[in-house]
Amino acid sequence: MMAALVSSDSLVTRALAADNAAMARLMSRAEAGTAECRPALAKLYAKAGRAHVIGITGVPGSGKSTLVSTLTLKLRASGKRVGIIAVDPSSPYSGGSIMGDRIRMSELVSDEGVFIRSMATRGAHGGMARASLEAVDVLDAAGFEYVIIETVGVGQAEVEIARAAHTIVVVSAPGLGDDIQAIKAGILEIADIHVVSKCDRSDANRTISDLKSMLTMGLSVGGSRLWQTPVVPTSSANGEGFEQLIECLDGHGQFMRKSEAGQERIRRIAEFRMLKTAEDLLHQRFLNSRQGELATVSAQLSDRRISPYQAAERLLNGINLQGTP
Amino acid sequence: MMAALVSSDSLVTRALAADNAAMARLMSRAEAGTAECRPALAKLYAKAGRAHVIGITGVPGSGKSTLVSTLTLKLRASGKRVGIIAVDPSSPYSGGSIMGDRIRMSELVSDEGVFIRSMATRGAHGGMARASLEAVDVLDAAGFEYVIIETVGVGQAEVEIARAAHTIVVVSAPGLGDDIQAIKAGILEIADIHVVSKCDRSDANRTISDLKSMLTMGLSVGGSRLWQTPVVPTSSANGEGFEQLIECLDGHGQFMRKSEAGQERIRRIAEFRMLKTAEDLLHQRFLNSRQGELATVSAQLSDRRISPYQAAERLLNGINLQGTP
Repeated sequence: MMAALVSSDSLVTRALAADNAAMARLMSRAEAGTAECRPALAKLYAKAGRAHVIGITGVPGSGKSTLVSTLTLKLRASGKRVGIIAVDPSSPYSGGSIMGDRIRMSELVSDEGVFIRSMATRGAHGGMARASLEAVDVLDAAGFEYVIIETVGVGQAEVEIARAAHTIVVVSAPGLGDDIQAIKAGILEIADIHVVSKCDRSDANRTISDLKSMLTMGLSVGGSRLWQTPVVPTSSANGEGFEQLIECLDGHGQFMRKSEAGQERIRRIAEFRMLKTAEDLLHQRFLNSRQGELATVSAQLSDRRISPYQAAERLLNGINLQGTP
Repeated sequence: MMAALVSSDSLVTRALAADNAAMARLMSRAEAGTAECRPALAKLYAKAGRAHVIGITGVPGSGKSTLVSTLTLKLRASGKRVGIIAVDPSSPYSGGSIMGDRIRMSELVSDEGVFIRSMATRGAHGGMARASLEAVDVLDAAGFEYVIIETVGVGQAEVEIARAAHTIVVVSAPGLGDDIQAIKAGILEIADIHVVSKCDRSDANRTISDLKSMLTMGLSVGGSRLWQTPVVPTSSANGEGFEQLIECLDGHGQFMRKSEAGQERIRRIAEFRMLKTAEDLLHQRFLNSRQGELATVSAQLSDRRISPYQAAERLLNGINLQGTP
């Protein structure tokens, strides 16, 4: 119980000195979404903005967790600190994170220059995106040079979070089934960098050439005249390709910092955060203000006396969105 | 251009007579989300409520599309009509559906008693859930006895839609990788019926016994004293298990219609629809009303002069959620 009494202010001071326990506690408060920690989060946000935020996404089975582990080890070799925010799909009932993949990262856990956080995928409406990006701020303000957001590349909300990174890495693996390939198509075009994992496998060349022809056909949106989306073959088994991957990451980080297109994208990411946060607050307030009516209106809907739109309009009745001037 | 002039009212009349073209056009109007078709959707909603709505979900590679095809063929043998709403993850840029899996259903396409619709996964905030459930209404009102909602079992928004069905079937397959198994854990507990697909494979017994021990440990939430969640092994290759699956589906349909717990769950589904629709409308109106301020506030956020919460509060400034009495 004593632990809960630590003020958010003192946690901020300690987090800025990269105290792991303080960072973890601030992330938990951010996840809880209570108003008390907002001034602390605002202080961290003001100090943040230096880290290179990398979104790593791919379908289940693409090997992205192994890639993240190996990449983190290689980045650590240069002395840079690496934070990892893993956004895992969670049970809609328990609200807990799935820790399965994280076990592979055990070799990193004892390293003081690495901070790993699994985020529960909280209620929809921006809660997950909001809390994940606040966790990124904590690491960024604490001076971590790289912050990796790892998300599963399936699901609207999940892909949206990867898109809030400066650099989006989409991981493909050879030999996945048809179902999985079909889903993959939805995320390929958001890549700034393509990685083909498991390139020690003989069928990796097919995956690499498929991606390259897709890029030639101009199906990539992440790329532009100023940034050519590369395809990087890697193997976590033998360490191949990670030097090239780090070069590409640093190259894209420079592109984001120094180009007008990069700066414009950073402004769009800020707009995305602002809207997610506003929608999260609006949603909470709407639900709170309508608690008394929910049962009555949903009973009428359930009996089909009114339609879903009519029910919705009853709940929204009288809300004035124009605001006061 | 002429086609666009057909009134929603005349489409409703034709859809109630199960005219496929009229049903498809109403679904497109529902997806577009324009206000004009709401009276038509309200009429359909008032006529709906008889179909057994079945959510079928599973991780990529679980074989759920093949299962849906085989199940549909078996249900058709009894003369019942079957509608399929497939909610596929789509590109965040193109907004289009992925049709890959649907190809397997070609044998069903020529059957007048089967209607298949792939939904684009539109913007977040209930748009996808709202439009998918409106498509269910169209089929329900047109007298289809079964409506299957097929969703990929990864992603908050996607799983939420499966949960709006009367009966939730979670499909597991033997021999999937670690990454996929970890994700699967998040949806297992929402099952009313577990299906183990590909049970002609030798490693299927392991998957079946894993699910059964999980159920024994009481990890299932879908089950209750009144409904014991069954584990049904199926094989689309040899047709095994589909008779048992249909018995379980019909048994759960009866449970939903006849038990107080089932009726309560139907009320909760109505409440979910109402809230999704309200949030969708609220979100659209909020964005429309704030267009003029977005650029100014997000520029301040981007420069870190204000925090995401402060930016959000500026956008929400003056919104009165209490409503007029």
